[in-house]
Amino acid sequence: MSNHSLDRSRQLIEQYLSVRQLTTDICQSLEKEDLSVQPIADVSPPKWHLAHTTWFFEELLLVPYLQGFKKFNQQYSLLFNSYYKSAGDHWLQQDRGCLSRPTVNEILDYRGYIDNLVIQLLQQNNPEPEIQSILEIGLNHEQQHQELLYMDIKYILATNPTYPAYSNLPLAKSHGMKQSWKSFAEGLYHVGHEGEAFAYDNESPRHKHYTYPFKISDETVTNGEFLSFIDDKGYKSPNNWLSQGWDWVNSNSICKPLYWKQINGEWFEYTLHGLQPLDLDAPVVHVSYFEADAFATWKGARLPTEYEFEIYLQQTELKPGEKQATSQVAIYHPNNSSQKVGQVWCWTKSHYSGYPGYQTFKGVLEEYNGKFMCNQFVLKGGCVNTPKDHYRHTYRNFYQPHQRWMFSGIRLCKDH
Amino acid sequence: MSNHSLDRSRQLIEQYLSVRQLTTDICQSLEKEDLSVQPIADVSPPKWHLAHTTWFFEELLLVPYLQGFKKFNQQYSLLFNSYYKSAGDHWLQQDRGCLSRPTVNEILDYRGYIDNLVIQLLQQNNPEPEIQSILEIGLNHEQQHQELLYMDIKYILATNPTYPAYSNLPLAKSHGMKQSWKSFAEGLYHVGHEGEAFAYDNESPRHKHYTYPFKISDETVTNGEFLSFIDDKGYKSPNNWLSQGWDWVNSNSICKPLYWKQINGEWFEYTLHGLQPLDLDAPVVHVSYFEADAFATWKGARLPTEYEFEIYLQQTELKPGEKQATSQVAIYHPNNSSQKVGQVWCWTKSHYSGYPGYQTFKGVLEEYNGKFMCNQFVLKGGCVNTPKDHYRHTYRNFYQPHQRWMFSGIRLCKDH
Amino acid sequence: MSNHSLDRSRQLIEQYLSVRQLTTDICQSLEKEDLSVQPIADVSPPKWHLAHTTWFFEELLLVPYLQGFKKFNQQYSLLFNSYYKSAGDHWLQQDRGCLSRPTVNEILDYRGYIDNLVIQLLQQNNPEPEIQSILEIGLNHEQQHQELLYMDIKYILATNPTYPAYSNLPLAKSHGMKQSWKSFAEGLYHVGHEGEAFAYDNESPRHKHYTYPFKISDETVTNGEFLSFIDDKGYKSPNNWLSQGWDWVNSNSICKPLYWKQINGEWFEYTLHGLQPLDLDAPVVHVSYFEADAFATWKGARLPTEYEFEIYLQQTELKPGEKQATSQVAIYHPNNSSQKVGQVWCWTKSHYSGYPGYQTFKGVLEEYNGKFMCNQFVLKGGCVNTPKDHYRHTYRNFYQPHQRWMFSGIRLCKDH
Amino acid sequence: MSNHSLDRSRQLIEQYLSVRQLTTDICQSLEKEDLSVQPIADVSPPKWHLAHTTWFFEELLLVPYLQGFKKFNQQYSLLFNSYYKSAGDHWLQQDRGCLSRPTVNEILDYRGYIDNLVIQLLQQNNPEPEIQSILEIGLNHEQQHQELLYMDIKYILATNPTYPAYSNLPLAKSHGMKQSWKSFAEGLYHVGHEGEAFAYDNESPRHKHYTYPFKISDETVTNGEFLSFIDDKGYKSPNNWLSQGWDWVNSNSICKPLYWKQINGEWFEYTLHGLQPLDLDAPVVHVSYFEADAFATWKGARLPTEYEFEIYLQQTELKPGEKQATSQVAIYHPNNSSQKVGQVWCWTKSHYSGYPGYQTFKGVLEEYNGKFMCNQFVLKGGCVNTPKDHYRHTYRNFYQPHQRWMFSGIRLCKDH
Repeated sequence: MSNHSLDRSRQLIEQYLSVRQLTTDICQSLEKEDLSVQPIADVSPPKWHLAHTTWFFEELLLVPYLQGFKKFNQQYSLLFNSYYKSAGDHWLQQDRGCLSRPTVNEILDYRGYIDNLVIQLLQQNNPEPEIQSILEIGLNHEQQHQELLYMDIKYILATNPTYPAYSNLPLAKSHGMKQSWKSFAEGLYHVGHEGEAFAYDNESPRHKHYTYPFKISDETVTNGEFLSFIDDKGYKSPNNWLSQGWDWVNSNSICKPLYWKQINGEWFEYTLHGLQPLDLDAPVVHVSYFEADAFATWKGARLPTEYEFEIYLQQTELKPGEKQATSQVAIYHPNNSSQKVGQVWCWTKSHYSGYPGYQTFKGVLEEYNGKFMCNQFVLKGGCVNTPKDHYRHTYRNFYQPHQRWMFSGIRLCKDH
Repeated sequence: MSNHSLDRSRQLIEQYLSVRQLTTDICQSLEKEDLSVQPIADVSPPKWHLAHTTWFFEELLLVPYLQGFKKFNQQYSLLFNSYYKSAGDHWLQQDRGCLSRPTVNEILDYRGYIDNLVIQLLQQNNPEPEIQSILEIGLNHEQQHQELLYMDIKYILATNPTYPAYSNLPLAKSHGMKQSWKSFAEGLYHVGHEGEAFAYDNESPRHKHYTYPFKISDETVTNGEFLSFIDDKGYKSPNNWLSQGWDWVNSNSICKPLYWKQINGEWFEYTLHGLQPLDLDAPVVHVSYFEADAFATWKGARLPTEYEFEIYLQQTELKPGEKQATSQVAIYHPNNSSQKVGQVWCWTKSHYSGYPGYQTFKGVLEEYNGKFMCNQFVLKGGCVNTPKDHYRHTYRNFYQPHQRWMFSGIRLCKDH
Repeated sequence: MSNHSLDRSRQLIEQYLSVRQLTTDICQSLEKEDLSVQPIADVSPPKWHLAHTTWFFEELLLVPYLQGFKKFNQQYSLLFNSYYKSAGDHWLQQDRGCLSRPTVNEILDYRGYIDNLVIQLLQQNNPEPEIQSILEIGLNHEQQHQELLYMDIKYILATNPTYPAYSNLPLAKSHGMKQSWKSFAEGLYHVGHEGEAFAYDNESPRHKHYTYPFKISDETVTNGEFLSFIDDKGYKSPNNWLSQGWDWVNSNSICKPLYWKQINGEWFEYTLHGLQPLDLDAPVVHVSYFEADAFATWKGARLPTEYEFEIYLQQTELKPGEKQATSQVAIYHPNNSSQKVGQVWCWTKSHYSGYPGYQTFKGVLEEYNGKFMCNQFVLKGGCVNTPKDHYRHTYRNFYQPHQRWMFSGIRLCKDH
Repeated sequence: MSNHSLDRSRQLIEQYLSVRQLTTDICQSLEKEDLSVQPIADVSPPKWHLAHTTWFFEELLLVPYLQGFKKFNQQYSLLFNSYYKSAGDHWLQQDRGCLSRPTVNEILDYRGYIDNLVIQLLQQNNPEPEIQSILEIGLNHEQQHQELLYMDIKYILATNPTYPAYSNLPLAKSHGMKQSWKSFAEGLYHVGHEGEAFAYDNESPRHKHYTYPFKISDETVTNGEFLSFIDDKGYKSPNNWLSQGWDWVNSNSICKPLYWKQINGEWFEYTLHGLQPLDLDAPVVHVSYFEADAFATWKGARLPTEYEFEIYLQQTELKPGEKQATSQVAIYHPNNSSQKVGQVWCWTKSHYSGYPGYQTFKGVLEEYNGKFMCNQFVLKGGCVNTPKDHYRHTYRNFYQPHQRWMFSGIRLCKDH
């Protein structure tokens, strides 16, 4: 190998190990039991994430590129393929929590086995572009699962009436911020990803979009504002709601954001730092599209389109992902003290669809994004638990309108 | 009254009676039993449509504008309000078929009672603009239900293993048409409704949209083409399908369009003219968004956006709605013989959302369109059962992606 | 034919016509719409009963015994076979209300067609014992459906918020009766059917059962007594309830008998004579096994076994079934004025099982009773809507513990 | 304390410790992950059993009888009360697997804490009769849960496509036994529990039952015999089945006993010793009541009543429960080599009801048995995993007719 390719090889290995390490770090303070349960279908056992991200490298990198590769266990492909039909059968998502085996330790062994072989692959080759490209996707994929881990861990711990904390660090109270609006003029704007840096297929191609004048709030909606909605019978008034939202509210007796609890008349919020008195100045988080839309309607405003949101973001410093590998300094809850974006993912009113000229990734990864372009809405802006190097302003997160276990909040918009 | 307003009054009454008459005409050849059942939640008993369209005039026109108006029956508001929460409680949609009373005859009496009073209202007043405006909406609303009646009647009759025909007129075979594509250049196009003529709130405002080059098929997909998809294991190949579509196919054992039947190896299609040998040259109809999207993927094409579709339509003669009041001459099934559009509603890949600057109707009618802007896709172009004066090229029909009891078909599109 | 067999033939024909006539009489005052709907799976459209009872004679009598018999319609077997797997495929029970065709008139034609041929069969033959035996079962089967018709009609009309009455005859108020208990000594008793007269297979063989001393109430539980249970939070206290009953109460928000309604604090009961003020002295009716058992527990008593009940009945005059063919004199609601039994079917604590040595009917009729011997409880005593000649004290009615649309009430029992 | 009461105290402590020890022994070879998951609602996480049996002593013994008792954790009552409504709210059974906390270790600490205090209670008192009585029930209760643990552990491990074994001991093949029948004469027999020794309330009172002549098989049905039923299309022939059974078979695609697997045409059975070739001479196990009844019908026989079964057992040596505390010698699967009873629980055709004169336990334990007397069938005879000192011939096990994760088999009976 030339020095150059040696450096590149070293750099890739370092990057690989650093991302992989963070995943296990996230799980470190948890009990094996926490890593194994699945309280609802959407929430996977954390040990499943540990295994699935590993399977991704096995299936996409080692199987095709490492000569003589032997699988750690023939059945892991069945168990840890999430939804790639072209990679064979897979275990049903809602049944992941039925599996006690492989154990956490066996999965950690699996991670070690694959890590060694990935490093071996990266060392032995002057890594071909294809390998580098798949490695990059694999690491981005793993970072997505890091945020999913925070979401799922939070849901798992919150299910427990003892409300165990994930982190023992204290949470500072947010400062109230003055509401202000940023205005944007009518015109043809460019939106979407461009250039050589990594981005998912769904962020391309960069393209022109004609936009009408709008103004967008410089602050996300706070718990205090959302409480006013509740106090004004917001959940009881059908004309605030989309038709499907009204059905959802009534079928599921929804009357507050996911992790709010009222105890003897006082409001609390479950956070990764345990149950806390509701911080009225902090951004409201864990609301569904239905709730975000109903709040905006009640407020006489609307949700922004993803175009409007990205235009706004283009003028904003990159922020999400201050999270660090060690939990001594990480605060796992949005607050309103300093940062304009990157506290909570914000719902947009844009349905998740392919951009004009959209092309999916090729091969197995064709199934990565395109097949989910139905009945989901785009969220923009990143959140406090989005890994630092993972985020871009062109990033398109997407969820179904009733889902709310992700760190989802609200930013209002108005026609100007 | 002046001569002019007398004429206007007469004209409105004529228009009113003509639309109202067509509704009962549609039901005339049916049995009372056909008018009363509800095989699935989506399909209302035809007698419910007869009553609901009447309630619409009662609630929106007579209650506010006719002095001394007395309701025909106090409970009809509960029973025949469809989903207007601001108009009070309403019976659940899925339970409409549980109601044997009021009978068909009682509902016809109700229609007569309301018709007389609407005419009285139109006669006694130099009809105020508000009254004219509500009348116009009420008639358009009734026309929508005329098409719904054809859809629901078809579903009800098709449920029956004896396959009774709605019309005894013979169906001519379609002629095969040569496939051709129309190309459109990149640019900023205007789309949406403009002017004084009636349109729904969701068609406005007319606005600019930046469009990339595309070509669109001048023919809708035929039964023969769709059969090739089936024969090529189209329903069995996951990579043709959206993720939710694949789940839908498997949970419901979907393997063909809604009204196709295979009997001893031969394909038939239930039509309003009874069970017919499948006409390979006729447009495929009664497919879901999932099926339309899967077919397009399999074909290496895609569905058009609603913008692309409307740009295409702007160059096309207005066509849907040749349907006439008497069933002696009406053919109730799409065929490919002559007409470029208006045979089947075509799925677009556009999620049903508000246009930039969208404002809902005011008052009770706020609930007419806006609250359904979630998890539905737009269909364009009208169909053989769309009433003649009801259709415009800006018309936006919308359904959920799994629904297919409407006259829904496929028109392909490609990036150019 | 001899005179004797001529007489026998005439007698059978008369009997046949009289039973068949009563079935259509029951439906006479109803609208076609009432005869066509199915508000819940348990409740069949009355027109289905009209057809199914006819199919029974077609399938079991005419097909095997009438030479050259031609079916009225080949598809009726599919549509009107209820659950006899050995007689071929059958339409699903819960989908009976989806069928608008055949219409009521077509079904009445079907009845006429079959009636003519049954009479022809009875005339042309010196009817063989097999024919007589099947005729007898067919008529008893039809009588069962006559009571089912009252149950289903009541449910259908009660579903309607307008509460239409089935009969316009006034309902007299019940007289309060003094509660008294009948005591029975320990010993070996005989129970079950014996002799040549008709009985269902499940009533045989007559057999000995060792019984411990018990006393049984000479009155059924009244509405007034049941109201005390409600007022004492009977539906809110888990220790009154079987575990499955408690789940049923809570999942379905049960808080009163099926047809009770509270309007502005006043209690009413829907009856076949329309909505009536609750008659506190009338027997409570339309309660589930769960409610009957909970009431008995609350009262410090228990339900009788079917053995105890039959021992009690053996000392009681035969009564149920005063119902007559003409609705001018028929009162379709239990009252407590005169009759000791035959007002309401009473739940017993006995699971519906085969008696020792039980043999099912043979042939298709093997499926008549035996296959339902699981998770059902026996009811005894007949009700006001049980046809007169149909009832015996050995009769075993049976329903699932949550069902209550039959005329089911409560008679208490105690260990002595 | 007198020597006598000292001895009694020591004896009770020994007994207590021995039963408690066996429970944790059963779980010893498992991973924490195995102890935490709940693949279906019926199957509780093993750690839940460890905690619930402890809560039983806490709630029923320590709370009322140990002065100054402090709970280990206030929330455990909510979490580990199974279904005793009079002991306060309880967590829903189907959500037990959602709880990652308390962890296995915390639950073991809880066990230690309660054990110490129970011992303290037994030492400090000349234990009053009430205490001895509750202790006895608590130990019997814990033994029931020991068998439940085997059932649940088996289900959990079998869910895993890797089929991990619970025990590594080899399983010997069964020897074929000659089928023989035992005959019993007609007459009045005594059945039920009598005397001072412990029994559940549902086994009393001993009472007379008149029984008709019957013969009962001296062998349980084998895998080989059951395979013949399958090969003869037993699962495909509706006339073998109860109506609800047929629905169950079809809705759930049932075609074999719970743990049978067919791999490349060969039959295997998952056992606690791992996946094994199907032993044709071993008793069939893990069949539902529906399957047991269908098999008997197909065989021209029937299931015995619980009376017949107990009469048969009265002539049989006591056998179940050879299981020992250490897994070095325990075989956890039925075989047919030696033992006449105690291999598999056998379904009877008797609905689980109270005996004549039945009285429930008093207080909280009123809910132990009585409230489940609905839609369950009695099983008799014990199984290979029933603890040794726990079983009596009067024992009445009971399950719903579709359940089959317990060690349930079939013994045939015939009218003589």
